[in-house]
Amino acid sequence: MDIHSEMDKIGKRARAAQYQLRRAKTGAKNEALASMAEFLRRDADDLQRANRKDLRAAEETGRDAAFLDRLRLDEGRIEAMAKGLEEIAALPDPVGEITDLRYRPSGIQVGKMRGPIGVIAMIYESRPNVTADAAGLCLKSGNAVILRGGSESLHSNMAIAERLRAALGRARLPLDAVQYVGTADREAVSVLVRMDAFVDVVIPRGGKGLIERISREATVPVIKHLHGNCHVYVDASADPDKALRVVINAKTQRLGTCNTAESLLVHAARAGDLLPAIAQALQEKGIEIRACPRSLPLIPGAIAAGEDDYYAEYLGPIISVKVVDDVDAAIAHINTYGSQHTDAILTEDLGSAQRFLREVDSSSVMVNASTRFADGFEYGLGAEIGISTNRLHVRGPVGLEGLTTQKWIVLGDGHIRA
Amino acid sequence: MDIHSEMDKIGKRARAAQYQLRRAKTGAKNEALASMAEFLRRDADDLQRANRKDLRAAEETGRDAAFLDRLRLDEGRIEAMAKGLEEIAALPDPVGEITDLRYRPSGIQVGKMRGPIGVIAMIYESRPNVTADAAGLCLKSGNAVILRGGSESLHSNMAIAERLRAALGRARLPLDAVQYVGTADREAVSVLVRMDAFVDVVIPRGGKGLIERISREATVPVIKHLHGNCHVYVDASADPDKALRVVINAKTQRLGTCNTAESLLVHAARAGDLLPAIAQALQEKGIEIRACPRSLPLIPGAIAAGEDDYYAEYLGPIISVKVVDDVDAAIAHINTYGSQHTDAILTEDLGSAQRFLREVDSSSVMVNASTRFADGFEYGLGAEIGISTNRLHVRGPVGLEGLTTQKWIVLGDGHIRA
Repeated sequence: MDIHSEMDKIGKRARAAQYQLRRAKTGAKNEALASMAEFLRRDADDLQRANRKDLRAAEETGRDAAFLDRLRLDEGRIEAMAKGLEEIAALPDPVGEITDLRYRPSGIQVGKMRGPIGVIAMIYESRPNVTADAAGLCLKSGNAVILRGGSESLHSNMAIAERLRAALGRARLPLDAVQYVGTADREAVSVLVRMDAFVDVVIPRGGKGLIERISREATVPVIKHLHGNCHVYVDASADPDKALRVVINAKTQRLGTCNTAESLLVHAARAGDLLPAIAQALQEKGIEIRACPRSLPLIPGAIAAGEDDYYAEYLGPIISVKVVDDVDAAIAHINTYGSQHTDAILTEDLGSAQRFLREVDSSSVMVNASTRFADGFEYGLGAEIGISTNRLHVRGPVGLEGLTTQKWIVLGDGHIRA
Repeated sequence: MDIHSEMDKIGKRARAAQYQLRRAKTGAKNEALASMAEFLRRDADDLQRANRKDLRAAEETGRDAAFLDRLRLDEGRIEAMAKGLEEIAALPDPVGEITDLRYRPSGIQVGKMRGPIGVIAMIYESRPNVTADAAGLCLKSGNAVILRGGSESLHSNMAIAERLRAALGRARLPLDAVQYVGTADREAVSVLVRMDAFVDVVIPRGGKGLIERISREATVPVIKHLHGNCHVYVDASADPDKALRVVINAKTQRLGTCNTAESLLVHAARAGDLLPAIAQALQEKGIEIRACPRSLPLIPGAIAAGEDDYYAEYLGPIISVKVVDDVDAAIAHINTYGSQHTDAILTEDLGSAQRFLREVDSSSVMVNASTRFADGFEYGLGAEIGISTNRLHVRGPVGLEGLTTQKWIVLGDGHIRA
């Protein structure tokens, strides 16, 4: 069978399952989620056996230690997947939520009802836990999901997906609510992201290469998760202790995440006073500092920043530093060089805080808090399927609500339009 | 100058204006809207002179009466544009609205703030009033707009846009918040819808051909306004008077709109009782009936419906009729043949109403009300820029809120992530 007709079959099955899922009771969905967790725990040995096949193949093809670590499924990670599914079961069901129902002068009541988007294609790289996380979130939000993980994690992903489908069966929900694309054909992804008739949205999770490829090829809408060039701006009125604490946390709590700070902006009036101490604390944590001409003399051991540094997402032990004249200059710098991911201001001045919140055009904008908080769990979403850098539909951490859409509902009593 | 660099310049100016608009005060935006209305009224003669040029050219190229009517700007239509702008001024400003601000266990407050999408490209056909309507809605929601109307209405649109820009100047807002693409080069649209760096969303308004072309060519997200194949389903428990009234209104109140009913579904138990009277009333209004095998014998003068009839958006004096076995069959029919625009049930049964509301996958779903209510004014949006048939971001009538996006805001007091 050629890849087009194979993918078409998967798409049709997903669409059919999705219409059944649309009327699934919350209880049935939660029961399936609980069974998913149960089956993953029960079959942990089988999952690890499948995972060892993937690990061996990856070792043989010379993958590095970091890759192997992401691929590995140990007891702890299986337990984490199971717990994650149970947590999703405990979240409120977003489907059917009615809001803003109001009477209009014509006598009709108009409001909004939340429901599933439809069929979601999830394309991801080596972490097998995404299989369970994505399936759980899609199921709870009433969406059918078509999963396609990296070929290196094929055995692990298929083994997980098998348990997820068994759990759907036990809860009498359509098995095709969760499908895994197991074909070796690399064309599968290109076909999947152009199946407008059967797929409503594509969510890629992985490196820049994957996301750029999918954005280029897709005709189906894509919820993108691009890079994070996050800023912390220390305003004229910043409290020195809070500034030091937040900058150190934002940069060093974890180096490789998209919400890690990559650039520090400091108001000119505070550069002399605050920058040396902050820079020293960063350097003690092993961070290299790339400084603008005004900050360079204030920071022993810093090197001169080039224009490229202000655009960079280092994902490592480097930070760029720039002195700016005021909050306007800080906002302009962030809106020019930033990636509209997460940016924070340190200030005790209400006006500066309000301007920064309103005018910084990023998916998360923070006052006196570490950029590291930009995360679905920290925001109370319960779980996240990614962090959207789109402007439309959903920005920032995407949880159950981001996987839904709202339709209008109108209630009348035989009302007609005049 | 080639069309690419010309459009690039327009894009850059729009982006720059948009960053200024982001911090515009509500008062300044309302002042500009009021001045727009004032200038359109003041210069009504000039607008009509420009419009006569367009009308003459259209007559010479043999355009039909309906086209000329859409193109015509008379006193009444100029007054309606001005009133529309004043009504937009009177709507609450959606920019900066903060919702759902809650404390999290970590101590941070997390919420959402509404703001502009950014730069909107509006591509439309012959009605010149769209120039003012779109500019007004975009301005109020803090977006810069790039307008491109049909070449047949060039003089009218340019004359309107000139007044709108003058009003922006008087309110000390950036003129480039409203730009009109006046070049004769037909490539302009193709370039515009691929300028991802400068345009955040494209909204086409016009015939199917225009919307399909733009959907095909655009790399920027598109808010589509596709066709409406709207259904009215008369359930077993329907009240006969309400059913008759709503079906007649939904089909005949206006024939050519996207929220007009194109298909009537009737529960088998009520076909004999209700269908003859409803059909007769429709026929008295000049509506041709295309009936399924079960309804055909009940309706004198009806002709047999083919499969294509159930997919059709007639936009004219025809309706398809089908007898269905129950609410399940009605929902399945609508989800199969419908266009996910607007669908209504007539029922006195709460269970049927709830199932229909939840399971019909359309942008507007109604109980005991005419599909003709699917409209921004009727829903209380104040004004609409179109009716979205997208599933993501915004479905159904699009008003100010649909032209905005929400970002996350986080308020702390030096909080760091543990």
